[in-house]
Amino acid sequence: MAWFDDKEEFYLAQQLEKEGNSLDISSRRHFIKNSLSFLAGSASIAALPNTVNAQTPPNIPKWTRSLGRGVVSVPYGQPSKYQKNTVRRTVPWLTADSISAVSMTPLQDLKGIITPNGLVFERYHAGVPDINPDQHRLIIHGLVERPRIFTMDDLKRFPSVSEIKFLECPANGGMEWKGPQMQGLQFTHGMLSCCEWSGVKLSTLLQEVGVKSEGKWVLAEGADGAAMARSIPLEKALEDTIVVYAQNGEALRPEQGYPLRLLNPGWEGNTSIKWLRRLEIGDKPWYMREETSKYTDLMADGKARKFSFVQECNSVITSPCPEKPWKKHGWYELEGLAWSGNGTIKAVDVSIDGGVKWQPAQIKGVVLSKALTRFSLPFKWQGQPLLLQSRAIDNTGYVQPTLAQLREQRGMNSIYHKNAIHTWQVTADGSVNNVQLS
Amino acid sequence: MAWFDDKEEFYLAQQLEKEGNSLDISSRRHFIKNSLSFLAGSASIAALPNTVNAQTPPNIPKWTRSLGRGVVSVPYGQPSKYQKNTVRRTVPWLTADSISAVSMTPLQDLKGIITPNGLVFERYHAGVPDINPDQHRLIIHGLVERPRIFTMDDLKRFPSVSEIKFLECPANGGMEWKGPQMQGLQFTHGMLSCCEWSGVKLSTLLQEVGVKSEGKWVLAEGADGAAMARSIPLEKALEDTIVVYAQNGEALRPEQGYPLRLLNPGWEGNTSIKWLRRLEIGDKPWYMREETSKYTDLMADGKARKFSFVQECNSVITSPCPEKPWKKHGWYELEGLAWSGNGTIKAVDVSIDGGVKWQPAQIKGVVLSKALTRFSLPFKWQGQPLLLQSRAIDNTGYVQPTLAQLREQRGMNSIYHKNAIHTWQVTADGSVNNVQLS
Repeated sequence: MAWFDDKEEFYLAQQLEKEGNSLDISSRRHFIKNSLSFLAGSASIAALPNTVNAQTPPNIPKWTRSLGRGVVSVPYGQPSKYQKNTVRRTVPWLTADSISAVSMTPLQDLKGIITPNGLVFERYHAGVPDINPDQHRLIIHGLVERPRIFTMDDLKRFPSVSEIKFLECPANGGMEWKGPQMQGLQFTHGMLSCCEWSGVKLSTLLQEVGVKSEGKWVLAEGADGAAMARSIPLEKALEDTIVVYAQNGEALRPEQGYPLRLLNPGWEGNTSIKWLRRLEIGDKPWYMREETSKYTDLMADGKARKFSFVQECNSVITSPCPEKPWKKHGWYELEGLAWSGNGTIKAVDVSIDGGVKWQPAQIKGVVLSKALTRFSLPFKWQGQPLLLQSRAIDNTGYVQPTLAQLREQRGMNSIYHKNAIHTWQVTADGSVNNVQLS
Repeated sequence: MAWFDDKEEFYLAQQLEKEGNSLDISSRRHFIKNSLSFLAGSASIAALPNTVNAQTPPNIPKWTRSLGRGVVSVPYGQPSKYQKNTVRRTVPWLTADSISAVSMTPLQDLKGIITPNGLVFERYHAGVPDINPDQHRLIIHGLVERPRIFTMDDLKRFPSVSEIKFLECPANGGMEWKGPQMQGLQFTHGMLSCCEWSGVKLSTLLQEVGVKSEGKWVLAEGADGAAMARSIPLEKALEDTIVVYAQNGEALRPEQGYPLRLLNPGWEGNTSIKWLRRLEIGDKPWYMREETSKYTDLMADGKARKFSFVQECNSVITSPCPEKPWKKHGWYELEGLAWSGNGTIKAVDVSIDGGVKWQPAQIKGVVLSKALTRFSLPFKWQGQPLLLQSRAIDNTGYVQPTLAQLREQRGMNSIYHKNAIHTWQVTADGSVNNVQLS
């Protein structure tokens, strides 16, 4: 199967137009053939005449005819200036102040499963503290045999682990319980990232301090101005919680908790306390502000689900999306992300008619527990209107619900844990809209 | 096993000294117990008295008593100012000019297997070109049925892959064939990184253009001022070569080939042509400058190995290393990296006596083909001098050679493909030196 049938003229024509060349369409096929056979006969493009004109496509660009910048000029690399629109973005009306706010990952611009550190979404409650790691301490106390205060150097001497895990705010998509609000993947799903996290397993540290038999819960508290704190069941702490100091190889970024944070894989991001300063072992939860008035799920009957920790199985199509419309007819790779806080992604189905018929997508690359997973489906678009949906299934057998199913269980009062099947409407001109089906 | 036996006094003492507190050692145990039980009884550190003095350790730091920076201020995140020494570094005497030079990854500061994009080593031959992606084209021609010119948008419509693969310059460690030259892991092994690379399989593009039956080699050429070019056997191109446009999720960085590069997994980095502009199919190699006068291995008898593409199985201990000495006696995690251009790492052995006795290290995290792999070994250091070595074995059964074995086969004239077992000398004061054993 050729992906671009008979398209060669089109793309070369496009290039020539940019260069101000006025060749008419009828002459192009002959022109291309001559030019290419000329190129094929030479050992290297460098052997071409220096006089660049329309007879030697593709033109030798200006950057091939000059020297670039040297190696020492950027000791810590930065993106190309042409990528300046690939940035985290905020929704100004969503929060009252920028120090207790959220920025979102530009999922529409990303490939693979790793989120680069500069684009990982942010959420904090009293701004980003500027912590000197030499002065930072982690205290572990409460129902333990040997209370301890650790320096960063101490923590780095323990056996370490490195795990690729997604991190998601449970409010991701939370603006959309009652109807579509956001035009753009970055805003409907961008409180989501996936990194390789390195640090010490919390179970290692708890072994060091010796948890008393009556210890059942862990309070984790941050060193930020909000002293953000959450209660975590000891069972989770002993299972896979990590006290993290590195992210994608390097030290944590300030907005991600530098120099130390917790990571509760697969659980709501809010529990993965940043700027981690204190762990207390207790026999019951603490019922802190962020697990009572916030981060609980208000149901239709006025009661609230509490300690709804797990980010359940979810998925979204990332290409196309409102920010990445289909500009031409022809073959595309329809692509997306799936994830589950309960384990691995087992399958993803895709629908082009709003969930009437489904077909299996291909799972791509490495499939890791509690990590983002890519799926894709080659698709030939010829201008037909579509209602695109994806539906993920994890290794526990859990199937991502429809919005109607979710509303039936939870009502529409909650902000959190909206993992419903998402719909993109593709219109005849290739633009993509965020819609909800009744 | 407690990692820090009876060390609590020491670390708290350290902290108190920094705070100018003059408590003597004998009073500290009592002091800690009182303070901790006080803490344990309060619901939150925020409930502690605002008057911070030596009776309320750990002190509530200044950053917990103030607001930090807001969310919109850094749309593209940057490392903490305290990490300013975690940067790529050059060796000034190694190359004549900064536009044809190399910078090296600070492996001593990294964890896990992903190298963040800002720290991926650089090597180029005419500086970093400043390429406008809208003007960039990839031409595929030569012995093909349908020559094509692709825009970046065209390439992004093809089915994509994302693969975590190491990238290594074959000159990595090449300064050390005749004896230790470099004090530091960053300089002995830092031409090495590992990223998640996303793009189109070259086999997909070759299917699109239709390779003629006489086509056996591919010439890849860059759009930089050097028009860097290498000949690649068609067999490799069809196996796993990727035409890459994204690295760790986001667009390639300028120094890594923005907007388009080749990646030949497991092969010498020089073949993974950056700023990729032209692919020509031919029936034999082109014998370009960079595969004849350079990137061939001069043997003792004056002949040269050519097309020695594979980066064979290699490993190095990253902690301790000259930049990360052991400052105290006690337990440490001895850690390192292993990799093989032929497949996965099967095992790594560690020696503390210069290769007389070996013990197996633990392989950590996900093990991927042609990717960096972490190994570790808990080790209690009590001041004894050590000669630390690691020896990796890959899934083909290949065992990383000693330097003596390598010299016997290849002499000492080459720069490239030095994958010998490396030795760090740990002295009685915990400092670490780069040495070679006779």
